[in-house]
Amino acid sequence: MADTLTTPRQIVVAVVGDGDPRGPEAHRVLEWAEEVGQRIARGGAAVVTGGLGGVMRAASRGAASAGGYTIGILPGDDPQEANEYVRLPIATGLGVIRNLVVVTSADAVVAVGGRHGTLSEIGLALRMGRQVVTLGSWRVESDQRMGGPRVHRAHDPREAADLALRLAKEGPVRPST
Amino acid sequence: MADTLTTPRQIVVAVVGDGDPRGPEAHRVLEWAEEVGQRIARGGAAVVTGGLGGVMRAASRGAASAGGYTIGILPGDDPQEANEYVRLPIATGLGVIRNLVVVTSADAVVAVGGRHGTLSEIGLALRMGRQVVTLGSWRVESDQRMGGPRVHRAHDPREAADLALRLAKEGPVRPST
Amino acid sequence: MADTLTTPRQIVVAVVGDGDPRGPEAHRVLEWAEEVGQRIARGGAAVVTGGLGGVMRAASRGAASAGGYTIGILPGDDPQEANEYVRLPIATGLGVIRNLVVVTSADAVVAVGGRHGTLSEIGLALRMGRQVVTLGSWRVESDQRMGGPRVHRAHDPREAADLALRLAKEGPVRPST
Amino acid sequence: MADTLTTPRQIVVAVVGDGDPRGPEAHRVLEWAEEVGQRIARGGAAVVTGGLGGVMRAASRGAASAGGYTIGILPGDDPQEANEYVRLPIATGLGVIRNLVVVTSADAVVAVGGRHGTLSEIGLALRMGRQVVTLGSWRVESDQRMGGPRVHRAHDPREAADLALRLAKEGPVRPST
Repeated sequence: MADTLTTPRQIVVAVVGDGDPRGPEAHRVLEWAEEVGQRIARGGAAVVTGGLGGVMRAASRGAASAGGYTIGILPGDDPQEANEYVRLPIATGLGVIRNLVVVTSADAVVAVGGRHGTLSEIGLALRMGRQVVTLGSWRVESDQRMGGPRVHRAHDPREAADLALRLAKEGPVRPST
Repeated sequence: MADTLTTPRQIVVAVVGDGDPRGPEAHRVLEWAEEVGQRIARGGAAVVTGGLGGVMRAASRGAASAGGYTIGILPGDDPQEANEYVRLPIATGLGVIRNLVVVTSADAVVAVGGRHGTLSEIGLALRMGRQVVTLGSWRVESDQRMGGPRVHRAHDPREAADLALRLAKEGPVRPST
Repeated sequence: MADTLTTPRQIVVAVVGDGDPRGPEAHRVLEWAEEVGQRIARGGAAVVTGGLGGVMRAASRGAASAGGYTIGILPGDDPQEANEYVRLPIATGLGVIRNLVVVTSADAVVAVGGRHGTLSEIGLALRMGRQVVTLGSWRVESDQRMGGPRVHRAHDPREAADLALRLAKEGPVRPST
Repeated sequence: MADTLTTPRQIVVAVVGDGDPRGPEAHRVLEWAEEVGQRIARGGAAVVTGGLGGVMRAASRGAASAGGYTIGILPGDDPQEANEYVRLPIATGLGVIRNLVVVTSADAVVAVGGRHGTLSEIGLALRMGRQVVTLGSWRVESDQRMGGPRVHRAHDPREAADLALRLAKEGPVRPST
């Protein structure tokens, strides 16, 4: 029976960023996030986010507009908190720590803009062996040479999505801890 | 655009229990879990489990055999750890604490058999306001009268699934903390 | 240098229960918790709690009155939330999941009264191999025979503290999962 | 009774970094961590670490040598895993997520060297509003202007400890999320 029931694993890309972007860059960041979500969905991957507003909502909206599957990993215990473009809300009750689940549930991560919460997601992603693509987000560098996952800077949504899709297909790599 | 993109929320029921049932009851527990999963899927709900073996695999298999949607919330960081009947693996990196996500991501919880890990899931489910149906599992009682979610004992897989589907539709209730 | 710097490990007992006891039993529950905390401190163990009010505060107060060391594992990110009898507040930012740390940081656990949150702590304690002593709290039983830690019912604060001190000295046991 | 029992809150500084430093910098990193721990203890603050080896052990050793109080927030469930300079081991059972507790339990954080795990701690520290001092560690920068905690680069152990003690006394600041 197993043969006919089992299904190929779906590629999943996380999009992380500001839940409420402000300032002169806000509009551009949301446009970027929507285009990144759309391009990832067109590339055949599901989009996972933290399920709330701002970049999370924009990326989910972009993916949904391309017919993609959208997952929202919520900090609270109420699935109704998810934005309207999330097809599968996962209420976690974890608070801040849901950030770990957002990045670990993905095969690769794109950070669009973002402040302190986004930096924590970039750090956790690398710790869990997930490659990270940034677009107008944090620059993180170390003096030490080390193997494992790293941060790749993209310059536009197309480059970010293409790079993330490629890295996601290659899959997680062993972090340096 | 929102109107055509948004979708109704899916009802989700968690099935929790032993990852490796042993002893004279093992065979019956696995049969129960498979039937519970199948009946929940037939009732139109998705089945979420911890994604590994034993009761988790049997419930996922039952749901998949009925064409249902199956989610596996994994303790580790590798989606490949999911059993072959999980359609959407969510790798969390949370270890023991993924138990919180399994129950919080559901609208109601069924516990089939189970040992210490299952008791922790029953406790966390009630703490998060999720009603719990037990089948051959823990009996938990308090001297105090308190409102909120509680444990409902079922006597066979059919009663467990029917009760869980009904409670899931009613949704979470406020815990007494 | 190591010889003179290292110190023997301290025995630690967790006291868990209602953060805001109500109803006819509330007064007795708080008296019990204070006496349990006092007796544990007299027995030479540190007392760890969730650091907030109700049973947590009463147990910390009892321990402090006997000159004992008190630790409060807080759900939020502000050490100032700890009650005034906590000597070492540990702000965790974990929310509900700080319950896991409260019980895992202890060698044994006493539950005094309590509602849904306390049941989650009893379940997590057993899952982490910590023996549990209950006093006017939940009754949990399984049809299955299983090894590992279990729930011991005490009938008064003296029996609860003595039993917890003895079990704490024996240390954690392997859970059945 | 409260007046005589309550005690002033202790200032706590976290030292984070590599659990097993390798390469040409390893020796210097460990010397730095030991000196940072020693200077923090002399400044009157307790030192919290992840409780294991490498930078965690060196910082604990430095603090213990100055008569300081040392706390180890362990990923596993066994307090015996703590290094021999930890006076209070806190076993958490949280795995990777114990990193959140290490930084949230502190008033400020020093990162000495470090790889992917350390970057996750820097990100989580800022997310929780804790100021971060780095010594030979990650450089993190954002294009955006934002308020809240930030990363301060120190050039030697003395500067790192002095800065961390000053920031710890000022206490947490609201993150930008």
